[in-house]
Amino acid sequence: MNIDSTQARVSRRGFLKGASLGVGGAAITGLLAACGSSPSPNGAPANAAAHTMQSTPAPSGTMTADEMDAMHEAGVKAFVAGVKTEGQGNQPLAPRIENGVKVFELTCAPLSWEYDAGKRADAWAYNSQVPGPEIRVTEGDTVRVIVKNELPESTAVHFHGVIVPNKMDGVPFVTQPPIKPGQSFTYEFTARNPGSHMYHSHHNSTKQVGQGLLGAFIIEPKDKSKQPAYDVEYTLILNDQLGGFTLNGKGFPATAPLIAKLGQKLRIRYMNEGQLIHPMHLHGLPQLVFAKDGWNLPQPFYCDTLNVAPGERWDVIVDCSEAGVWAFHCHILSHAEGEHGMYGMVTALIIQDPAASAEGTSSEAQAAAAFAHNPFVCQLS
Amino acid sequence: MNIDSTQARVSRRGFLKGASLGVGGAAITGLLAACGSSPSPNGAPANAAAHTMQSTPAPSGTMTADEMDAMHEAGVKAFVAGVKTEGQGNQPLAPRIENGVKVFELTCAPLSWEYDAGKRADAWAYNSQVPGPEIRVTEGDTVRVIVKNELPESTAVHFHGVIVPNKMDGVPFVTQPPIKPGQSFTYEFTARNPGSHMYHSHHNSTKQVGQGLLGAFIIEPKDKSKQPAYDVEYTLILNDQLGGFTLNGKGFPATAPLIAKLGQKLRIRYMNEGQLIHPMHLHGLPQLVFAKDGWNLPQPFYCDTLNVAPGERWDVIVDCSEAGVWAFHCHILSHAEGEHGMYGMVTALIIQDPAASAEGTSSEAQAAAAFAHNPFVCQLS
Amino acid sequence: MNIDSTQARVSRRGFLKGASLGVGGAAITGLLAACGSSPSPNGAPANAAAHTMQSTPAPSGTMTADEMDAMHEAGVKAFVAGVKTEGQGNQPLAPRIENGVKVFELTCAPLSWEYDAGKRADAWAYNSQVPGPEIRVTEGDTVRVIVKNELPESTAVHFHGVIVPNKMDGVPFVTQPPIKPGQSFTYEFTARNPGSHMYHSHHNSTKQVGQGLLGAFIIEPKDKSKQPAYDVEYTLILNDQLGGFTLNGKGFPATAPLIAKLGQKLRIRYMNEGQLIHPMHLHGLPQLVFAKDGWNLPQPFYCDTLNVAPGERWDVIVDCSEAGVWAFHCHILSHAEGEHGMYGMVTALIIQDPAASAEGTSSEAQAAAAFAHNPFVCQLS
Repeated sequence: MNIDSTQARVSRRGFLKGASLGVGGAAITGLLAACGSSPSPNGAPANAAAHTMQSTPAPSGTMTADEMDAMHEAGVKAFVAGVKTEGQGNQPLAPRIENGVKVFELTCAPLSWEYDAGKRADAWAYNSQVPGPEIRVTEGDTVRVIVKNELPESTAVHFHGVIVPNKMDGVPFVTQPPIKPGQSFTYEFTARNPGSHMYHSHHNSTKQVGQGLLGAFIIEPKDKSKQPAYDVEYTLILNDQLGGFTLNGKGFPATAPLIAKLGQKLRIRYMNEGQLIHPMHLHGLPQLVFAKDGWNLPQPFYCDTLNVAPGERWDVIVDCSEAGVWAFHCHILSHAEGEHGMYGMVTALIIQDPAASAEGTSSEAQAAAAFAHNPFVCQLS
Repeated sequence: MNIDSTQARVSRRGFLKGASLGVGGAAITGLLAACGSSPSPNGAPANAAAHTMQSTPAPSGTMTADEMDAMHEAGVKAFVAGVKTEGQGNQPLAPRIENGVKVFELTCAPLSWEYDAGKRADAWAYNSQVPGPEIRVTEGDTVRVIVKNELPESTAVHFHGVIVPNKMDGVPFVTQPPIKPGQSFTYEFTARNPGSHMYHSHHNSTKQVGQGLLGAFIIEPKDKSKQPAYDVEYTLILNDQLGGFTLNGKGFPATAPLIAKLGQKLRIRYMNEGQLIHPMHLHGLPQLVFAKDGWNLPQPFYCDTLNVAPGERWDVIVDCSEAGVWAFHCHILSHAEGEHGMYGMVTALIIQDPAASAEGTSSEAQAAAAFAHNPFVCQLS
Repeated sequence: MNIDSTQARVSRRGFLKGASLGVGGAAITGLLAACGSSPSPNGAPANAAAHTMQSTPAPSGTMTADEMDAMHEAGVKAFVAGVKTEGQGNQPLAPRIENGVKVFELTCAPLSWEYDAGKRADAWAYNSQVPGPEIRVTEGDTVRVIVKNELPESTAVHFHGVIVPNKMDGVPFVTQPPIKPGQSFTYEFTARNPGSHMYHSHHNSTKQVGQGLLGAFIIEPKDKSKQPAYDVEYTLILNDQLGGFTLNGKGFPATAPLIAKLGQKLRIRYMNEGQLIHPMHLHGLPQLVFAKDGWNLPQPFYCDTLNVAPGERWDVIVDCSEAGVWAFHCHILSHAEGEHGMYGMVTALIIQDPAASAEGTSSEAQAAAAFAHNPFVCQLS
């Protein structure tokens, strides 16, 4: 079964209510009621330090061990509760069909982008999203992308990894004139090579891509048997420009978790739109790497830490064989954690055990049970 | 058919005259007659800003969109016209034969290296080239390399990737004494492992390799059937030291394009002599990666962005199935483009369509047609 | 035959005495009697500059070529002689057996760590070792790790790459409470997936792993036929935090060489616990890469430069077919060498030729022969 990503993106709160994660651990005392609190600039909730702490030796002269732990805890709780931020990137863009052509419209414009609660950066975005909306077509489709430029600079769109006729390649002064402020340009081509690709600016690109002009371009194979079977999929666009270290335009704790059920096959599409490598480490479960830049590998291989370089895409399958909340982050540790808690390129893969869920009589009872056993799950107020 | 790289390096102007690239695009107004103009320090022609521009909002407070575009355009035009710089690296070095031994002579000496028009850096070079001259032998050859040191420091040469007897390994105080200023040292070994290798200094190497003491060492297999068939080949030596970001010792727009005919198989030999990774992204056409560090992979794989780490070599085949001018660059965008235009690790793969060329009655007519249709091709003055 | 690493770690001096390395080279004049001298902060012996030098032109205005060479030579000689430093990381940790469970104890505490002779850094260490002690078990073992925290901060241990139940995953506030100063925590799980793994802090990890809270966790396969055969093995833990660039917690010349006999198969387990990539280049002999993150590759491949990203592990086999002293280092040259000599991520693979050794009548005679022929081998005083 192939569930698309929009179906997979159920509400976290709804999910958590309906699941006992079966990860009962040691009892935690002193739980903060800090769910959803505003994180400070480095990822830890700003009000964490205001809580009463036990006294232990100061680890760095500036805070005690308990103070540090409280900040880390508050970040995790904020993530669990779901950090509310304005805007969500990588949302599916529905085409209109004109004479059999799938027509997508992209408008480039400035935007204030909230990459974490209360933290904003001046972005340039496609359709007010960072990353831009996901364009998804099927091999063989005729695709038209109409780009309108409402930026103060010229721009152009390159379909990174997609095989197109040269004049649709999006490189100003090489294959087309730049799209001046106020102008539009229409790209049209047949989607020939299936896989996980990208689109982004190819004009003044260090700045323009850095400011947010980037998105996923996915070509589904006509023959699904040419890819591994999977039940649920997520795209992870890695970045290190706008808003610092981000996954799909948000930094921890405002990142979204990946959610699957025990026994499901999960597909992850990695795309690096940043300037640094990001070796992505999934805890607990190996990743079966089966495609590079949209091309199936001759033989898939397993890993737990996948090094994704700028411009690369990698596709993996995770066999969700172990229930729990699995940390998932870049393993360049300074992209993921500081003294005030985790930040940046951190999320979690949550694998729900339906059998455990079935034990309760109601979703509320199940949620209560989960809260009692798993410190990861935040108390409802 | 295996055409060697010297045959492949035809003049760009000659090529462009003889080809209609078949990439007709939108009409371009206001073409600058800036072909061959001197680029400024960051890669954009210094005289670009002097052209009259339309008025559009200033994107950054310092220049208008049109001013920015003009600088980008001038860089592309300079590249097309061919930037004249002093010196060319990676030129084939003919051996003399002594009793069946192929003897190569390398002299290390200081040099002022012009890495882009009007931009120079104090280099240390082999035979006045950066990269040093290409040494190319055949598996089984007895090879002698006589190194003369005219530098103010001692040096030594390591044949990176080449299997040699330990005492020919080029590490001062480990396998040999350093070659003092004014001295010579003779390396001699049998070329055993075919593939794309390198040679470079192994003494005070951060500085000496950084200053330019590096080059390609290629061992052709005795049995050509042990490598994929190809029609044309290029070596791309990636660097990020002398002169900033360079391909074969030059930064865009002074980089040389790769040129092939429609339907040809192109082999690219990547070699990273820098200190940073460079994920090389070829537009339009996939790269079939078949060898790592000179060793054939058990199974080739496809990609469009190949991450090349310092010291690594990768060999790929590109099936030139789509005519046009394909941008080709490092996908760490700050290695390739700034507000003033593209720079550094940028070149293009130009794929000529002979059928399109045949339509004209003369090469001049074909060139005129190309100019009319493709803004990439610069107007002749 | 599978010799474990403790057997393989014979004394260098003992080894060198018993071996004629068969790498006779050019005569070296002016050998310094600097063996074992204290290196200065950048890796070159502090007393190197005090030796009388010939006069040659100053390469950088600060020292002559001879002065520079002497510093490089002294570094190599110090390495050969064996730099004495306090503490050695990655030592096998013997478990005690309780009811069939292998029980390991780790104590986290501050430590002054001597990463090179006379150079110290304030570390946080497991059992006073950087890297922490090697934990080695067999697939199917029940493993218990008792962690005692004597640090001023809370901590937690993540078994990186090891498949464990979620509650044993070591992520504070997600799978367990943090281990407060003075507290202990017990991890217990069955070792399911064989291979080269790691353990390290997962709390305030940029600092805690950076300070030294890291180590190797190796799971031997129950069925040895599922891995290539080898005679000797080494683990190389790459790092770029505590003490700069290090291999197993020490920087050149205090790094330990890898030692094997001609004809042996050598297994190297690479583990990157740093924040940067390290493309490890072995001179002279190819590396057959057969596993990534502990998982066998579907087909091994050869290379000479293996790019290891943070969090990754790679396993390779080297067929020791060529006697000699082979330089072995990170090929980001600034991680390995400066004007004052080699430093940081540099070691050597020493391949002994038993036939050459047999020529002498005593190990002393063999050592003397080696000294006469190989400048790498330091004179005995």
